Amino acid sequence: MGSHSSNRTRVPLSRMAMGNGHGEDSPYFDGWKAYQIDPFDPAENPHGVIQMGLAENQLCADLIEEWLIDHPEGSICTAGGSDKFRDIANFQDYHGLPKFRNGIAIFMGKVRGNRVKFDPDRIVMSGGATGAHDLIAFCLADPGDAFLVPTPYYPGFDRDLCWRTGVKILPVNCKSSNNFKITKKALEEAYNGAVDAGIRVKGLIITNPSNPLGTTLDRATMKDLVDFVNEMNIHLVCDEIYAATLFRGPDFISIAEVIEEYDDDCCNRDLIHIIYSLSKDMGLPGFRIGIVYSYNDDVVRCGRKMSSFGLISSQTQHLIASMLSDDEFVERFIAESSARLAKRHGYFTHELERVGIRCLDSNAGLFVWMDLRELLAEQTFEAEMVLWRVVIHKVKLNVSPGSSFHCSEPGWYRVCIANMDDQTMEIALARIRSFVLENMMGNCMRVVRSKESKAVECKLKVSFSNRKMEEVMKMPCSMSPCSPMPPRSPLVRART
Amino acid sequence: MGSHSSNRTRVPLSRMAMGNGHGEDSPYFDGWKAYQIDPFDPAENPHGVIQMGLAENQLCADLIEEWLIDHPEGSICTAGGSDKFRDIANFQDYHGLPKFRNGIAIFMGKVRGNRVKFDPDRIVMSGGATGAHDLIAFCLADPGDAFLVPTPYYPGFDRDLCWRTGVKILPVNCKSSNNFKITKKALEEAYNGAVDAGIRVKGLIITNPSNPLGTTLDRATMKDLVDFVNEMNIHLVCDEIYAATLFRGPDFISIAEVIEEYDDDCCNRDLIHIIYSLSKDMGLPGFRIGIVYSYNDDVVRCGRKMSSFGLISSQTQHLIASMLSDDEFVERFIAESSARLAKRHGYFTHELERVGIRCLDSNAGLFVWMDLRELLAEQTFEAEMVLWRVVIHKVKLNVSPGSSFHCSEPGWYRVCIANMDDQTMEIALARIRSFVLENMMGNCMRVVRSKESKAVECKLKVSFSNRKMEEVMKMPCSMSPCSPMPPRSPLVRART
Repeated sequence: MGSHSSNRTRVPLSRMAMGNGHGEDSPYFDGWKAYQIDPFDPAENPHGVIQMGLAENQLCADLIEEWLIDHPEGSICTAGGSDKFRDIANFQDYHGLPKFRNGIAIFMGKVRGNRVKFDPDRIVMSGGATGAHDLIAFCLADPGDAFLVPTPYYPGFDRDLCWRTGVKILPVNCKSSNNFKITKKALEEAYNGAVDAGIRVKGLIITNPSNPLGTTLDRATMKDLVDFVNEMNIHLVCDEIYAATLFRGPDFISIAEVIEEYDDDCCNRDLIHIIYSLSKDMGLPGFRIGIVYSYNDDVVRCGRKMSSFGLISSQTQHLIASMLSDDEFVERFIAESSARLAKRHGYFTHELERVGIRCLDSNAGLFVWMDLRELLAEQTFEAEMVLWRVVIHKVKLNVSPGSSFHCSEPGWYRVCIANMDDQTMEIALARIRSFVLENMMGNCMRVVRSKESKAVECKLKVSFSNRKMEEVMKMPCSMSPCSPMPPRSPLVRART
Repeated sequence: MGSHSSNRTRVPLSRMAMGNGHGEDSPYFDGWKAYQIDPFDPAENPHGVIQMGLAENQLCADLIEEWLIDHPEGSICTAGGSDKFRDIANFQDYHGLPKFRNGIAIFMGKVRGNRVKFDPDRIVMSGGATGAHDLIAFCLADPGDAFLVPTPYYPGFDRDLCWRTGVKILPVNCKSSNNFKITKKALEEAYNGAVDAGIRVKGLIITNPSNPLGTTLDRATMKDLVDFVNEMNIHLVCDEIYAATLFRGPDFISIAEVIEEYDDDCCNRDLIHIIYSLSKDMGLPGFRIGIVYSYNDDVVRCGRKMSSFGLISSQTQHLIASMLSDDEFVERFIAESSARLAKRHGYFTHELERVGIRCLDSNAGLFVWMDLRELLAEQTFEAEMVLWRVVIHKVKLNVSPGSSFHCSEPGWYRVCIANMDDQTMEIALARIRSFVLENMMGNCMRVVRSKESKAVECKLKVSFSNRKMEEVMKMPCSMSPCSPMPPRSPLVRART
């Protein structure tokens, strides 16, 4: 990079400020940096930070790899498929390849148990869910308008929804006392607060299944939301990008199903929009497949034109269209992905429970919402950050603190569990066990110097019950027998 | 599409108006519609409209097809390359794959005769050149600010630069009397006009090689532009997406070369930005590979964060990185593409000259800038549109009128020549010959009923010299001998 910077002020400060703000300076992103500086690698850097802050779905990549090898005709880059290269490489219609939109519509239906159908003509392309949120916010709101978003919510929303559009996010505070359920009371409080402040509310945005909670909304709550947006005449944007990560009951109920139960008089479909993507459900974040599915013709029209700014590569559209047209593969993928997630989730939460750590009961997602409130010295966000720094710099696990998800209560952490293999998961669990054990032994005062030479003081409260203490004491200090590697976290080393 | 539209007004009218405006209602897009309704196909619809409004480069697709078949390891979708599927499908860093940025930087250098080097760390990804223009306008200007753009210019700029950002385009009027050269006088007039109107000018945007002119800027003009932006302290955005379409001398001189001749005191590099893409130079518009190359660190930082909204598919990044790392292939492709364009351009312009039609002398691009001023009944834009409707509905060639490029003089048309095979080109030429001949025969009053039942009256002026008349009379009325098909345009049929 050069040294020419005398004219920097010519770049609007507002742009730069927005680029630097909106959550990118939050612990959520700080954790990524800590990981990037010292990334775990079983061979090269076994004491490095394990990435548990990335909601990636890597559990079924082998199924897609197999499909690719078995279906060279599905790609324009193979001897069997390159006869279509010319047409595909030239395709740049912002409607998207018809077979791609058809494939997505059918996939969206399958993921929802074929209880509802999707119209390919309502599918608008965008550059990932990131682009989809930017697109929908631009289409629905003017700068200064606001969207209600229940907490905790995905930190990227602050950037995706607000940066370019100039819209605001108003949190709807949900609480652990009812498992973070979205209540009508909380919605009305947030809405009325905005009205009092002279802010125009244009919509409500929910993630279902929830990121970071991993829970799905029940039918009664969904109906409350539909009633609420109709009563207030505001939009309802349902981010359903984790739809296929459901790994056990209760069922995931899409907004598409719920509104079918309403008469036109009771639900204005022009208010309803779905955000979708294959980044999580098929584990393809690099392919940037984002979808806005809107029941509002104007939004479809406006959004389609906006697609020009973030079209999905036609090479990728063609491949995905080929893959999604293979019904047998798609059905097997959805079932197998769900089964592998169930296994991973069950094992991880069970192992946490054995050391006395519980997570919010969940049925979907690529993560757990871990409750470490009992480990906080006091119930404050400062204490949450103290513990977080210990976890990332000492336990060497990049988990994400609840505060970065705008959670209204301290002590919750999102832990991603589907972006690593079994061996890495075992090492992460071993580190957690050692950490808990060490704290239970009363050895809880320690100064950790981070790489930036910042002293981080760790004051943790030991509050496990005697029963849990006994259980943990009975556990092996090192790793489970199935692990191929000795435990090597710094903590474990210190003990041996 | 459903029938729910009672709440349409909730979508901000400003959004919809912008979506519908900005050039998308211009003849440039109308022509596309005419083509889409009645597209030429040699077997299925031989009397349909031939698409000459699309600046696509299809002349070297066979070279890429061959490369794909010979290099299965270059793609993640083949048995030879799928071992990289997992890493690539998960890659979503907004910096882009390092090997992709390296490949682009080297390619950009090669296309410019290796006279200048590009730094991969200054390469910012965007969704095609469309996304790149939106990105740079967002980074550099606030809503209401303006960019100067010499005419004629690409109609998409009105949408790409202005729609989302709210910036204005102020035309710098260039004239045919000096071959549409950009003069300091015209720049100053446009700039001072803006100042007088209280509009803040943030930059100057040029396309070099020019779309639609097909010409390159000479070094003296480039220096004038650099001096001008430094004097006014505004940005210079150089859209160089047609760099590799140069097919004969004089050389294309990139802004990257020109600023190397300046001391830091005389040129503030923070003001200089390049837009690039592989859509035109490699004929891959569907892949959405857009690049902003900025010498301004703040723009690189801000733009990179904005990349999140329009990242290039990692599948595509990987393939292109593999392809561009093959030096021998890339060099052969650039040379062969240039040679094929030279041949196509030479043949087309020669055949037009034989019927008395001249084009602006050009050395690059995928089109010619055709001068039909002599065929206008009067030198007005209304007459230009009358002739255009005849060309599209009767001659059945979708060319683009100069007015849609904001040309300041009527009678010019952009005709794309690289998006079709030799046979289709021959049919297009046969239709042009027949059209000219028919008009020369004095049979120039005709009512054409378009598909929309709108009466279009055609009043054309016959003003060819006697010499030209003799030449044309000697030509065969039907197609050239190399054509495999009989002439089938409606005009030709009417005569036989």
